[in-house]
Formats: sequence, structure tokens, C-alpha cells
Amino acid sequence: MSFIQIHRFIDQETSTHSYLIYNNKQAAIIDPVLTNFTEYLSKLESLQLNLIYSIETHIHADHITAGNKLREHTNCKIVVGDKANVQCADIKLKDGDELKIGDLILKTLYTPGHTIESCCYLVQDRLFTGDCLFINGCGRTDFQNGSSEEQYNSIFKKLLVLPDETLVYPGHDYNNKMVSTIAQERINNPRLQINNAHEFTNIMDNLNLSKPKYMDIAVPRNLICGNEV
Amino acid sequence: MSFIQIHRFIDQETSTHSYLIYNNKQAAIIDPVLTNFTEYLSKLESLQLNLIYSIETHIHADHITAGNKLREHTNCKIVVGDKANVQCADIKLKDGDELKIGDLILKTLYTPGHTIESCCYLVQDRLFTGDCLFINGCGRTDFQNGSSEEQYNSIFKKLLVLPDETLVYPGHDYNNKMVSTIAQERINNPRLQINNAHEFTNIMDNLNLSKPKYMDIAVPRNLICGNEV
Repeated sequence: MSFIQIHRFIDQETSTHSYLIYNNKQAAIIDPVLTNFTEYLSKLESLQLNLIYSIETHIHADHITAGNKLREHTNCKIVVGDKANVQCADIKLKDGDELKIGDLILKTLYTPGHTIESCCYLVQDRLFTGDCLFINGCGRTDFQNGSSEEQYNSIFKKLLVLPDETLVYPGHDYNNKMVSTIAQERINNPRLQINNAHEFTNIMDNLNLSKPKYMDIAVPRNLICGNEV
Repeated sequence: MSFIQIHRFIDQETSTHSYLIYNNKQAAIIDPVLTNFTEYLSKLESLQLNLIYSIETHIHADHITAGNKLREHTNCKIVVGDKANVQCADIKLKDGDELKIGDLILKTLYTPGHTIESCCYLVQDRLFTGDCLFINGCGRTDFQNGSSEEQYNSIFKKLLVLPDETLVYPGHDYNNKMVSTIAQERINNPRLQINNAHEFTNIMDNLNLSKPKYMDIAVPRNLICGNEV
């Protein structure tokens, strides 16, 4: 079988969706969460998969990555976007860069806005959107060099132009939603029902959200691949 | 590319979702609607696809199939479930039967309940559910030898046992939803939040829905592949 296979892990505390994607015994995990590390190892073992990449969509503010611990145990490479100030990463991807996982090609879409280094990853017709685009929402843009203008450009000019049936796998969901399509988000997502960039930035710049609970712990550790400070 | 490619057609009047699925220049349409016939032909032409099957999930009561008209113009075979009393069909599928479309294998799941001949079709990890399972709902069971007990068995014993990440492509959606997963429906679908078969049949047997607007026209015509009576 040469199509992508997916197993989703949900971190209940932070509603983070991490994705094990695999093909021909090679695997990658997108946005692994440190507290679920043993669950990842069990799943890799039961499916007899060789983890070759631990991939981040961005530097998370709500959870600590399992990247370094996965690398220690599986010899996988740690992958981040090239705008991430992460010295310990093995591979830094820029827009358009590709990785091979079995017969799959994972393609990088540089999508700043939630944070400056945010990327989405496209495999066949499946888009892993991190905190750029959610189902019926999108990531906030008020910290870590986020930018509502860039978020607008990323969502409207890079994601919504993909084919309608492209599947959207978000980095979080707070309502037990699992998957959507580009067409569904274009039509339904309340944040995207605007007429121009200004309306979008006006919404995003006035959300007045409180700071993520674990931000001061998570960000410094994620800049060193999840290691202890 | 040997993964399934999909183009969705939405019939606005009846909120019917028809799916063109294709691979290696061979194509099938699941649940084509007569009024959208020319749209199908244009799409097949623009993608340079050879339509080999027109497939019905069941005998529809809300729209007339484009099956016969597609066969006349493309030489495709008309495919229905083997419990359908449709003499004009070329192929009748029973539970477990498979069709090949390019490199794809389409597998039949016999899922009576909405109607006695209802089938779902599984291609890789994508399930085309017809009117058996909807996103946040399911098909009614009060006509055409429908059965709420059979619908319970079809949904709970044949569909919800599929892997969590199996994608659900419904035959209708009335709220602009496009896709879901088996896990999402298990958790979220209000019709499925019941403790036993009796609770399910009790809901289904007391919906008191009015008859579909075009039922008396659509069913007789669909029994003859959409031909005029």
C-alpha cells in the first residue's frame, strides 16, 4: 500500500492532536507531546515501524515536545521550520522543502502568522495544519512574533487555494472534531467569513486572550527540543 | 500516484453529495444525480478520465440517478447492491465484493437499514456511507423496507468497528459538512450516543418525518436506472 496511513494521538489536557504517519514501515510523528512519549513508543512497536522523523509545525506554547526523547530512543531526526531558533534540530525545512517517508512525500508550506516559524505539511491530499488553521477556527497571533497579517496571507493565499477536497488535520481541536476539508473551512469557518485582510486582522488583534498556562515553561524547553532547561 | 483522488459534486436542491473517485485515468461516480449530468461529463473530460462505473449506494427517494444517462454516454457499467430490484444494472454487489478502479480496490459493505439494499463502499481508508451514516446523523428507516434494527447493526457492527481514522464521506449533508472520521462520529454523532439497540430503534421509529418531496417520482425511475417511466 502506498497511501498514507495515520494514527492520531490526542493529548487530553491540551487537546493537542499529534499524528503518526507511516508508509512501508517508515514513520514520522507530527507534533509529539512529551507526556505521551510512552504511548508513541508502544504504537511504533506494535506496528513495527521505524520512526525516522519527529516533526514540529511550530514552537509550541502549550505543551513540551517529545522530540528529543524520541530521538534518544529511536534515532529519528528532529525536524522544524527554518525560521525556528532551534539549534538542536537535525533538519530545518523551508517553504517547498520535501521529506520522504516510505513512498510518501511530505511537502513543507511555510505559513507564518500563529508564530513566525509555523509550517503546515502536505502529504498527498492531507494537510497537517498545526496551529495555522483549525476546524472552525485558527491559531491566535499575539505572541512569539505572530502576526495577524501573515496569518491572513498564510490561510487565504497558501491553504485555501489548495484543492477543495484537501483534508485538514488540525494541531488542536477543542470540540472532538477530527478532520475537515479546505472547502468546508472556506464555507463554514467563522474566522474566514470576512471580506478582506483588514477585517481578519481586526478580529485577530482584538481577541484579548489570556496567556497559555504552560507558556513560560513550554517555549524555553521547546527551543531545546524538549530537553530540560 | 496510486492513492484515491476525489472530486465532490453537491446537488444544492437535495444536498446530495456525489463523488467522482479516480486513479490512473479510470473513474467511478458514486450516487450521480440526473440534473447534474452535464457537470459530470465536463469534469470527466477536463480530467481526461474514463468512467467505468456508475455506482449507487441505494435506491434514492430524493433524486433521480444519472446512471442510465452516464452509461449511454460513456459506456460505464451501472452498479448496485444485490438486494436492489434493478434489472437494468450491469453489476450487483454483495457484502465483501470488490471492484477495481485503476489501482484502487472498492470494497462493498452491505449495510441495510435506511433501505434494504443500502451499501457503503470502502476505498483505502475512505468510506462512502450513502444514507447509512451522516455527519452528526444517519439515514431515516421508515420506507423502502428500511429497518431501524438493521440500521443499528449496520452502523454499530459494520461501520463503527472500522479503524478510528477511517474517513466518512456521507451521501448528504445539510450543514456544509464534508467529511468526518469513524472516531468523530462515535464520539459526536447525537444519534449514536445510546446504550443499546433498543434506544436507537426507539429514536428512529419515532421521528415522524414527512415523505420526501420527489419520492413517488424518484423511486420508480431509480428502479430503472433513471430512465423515464
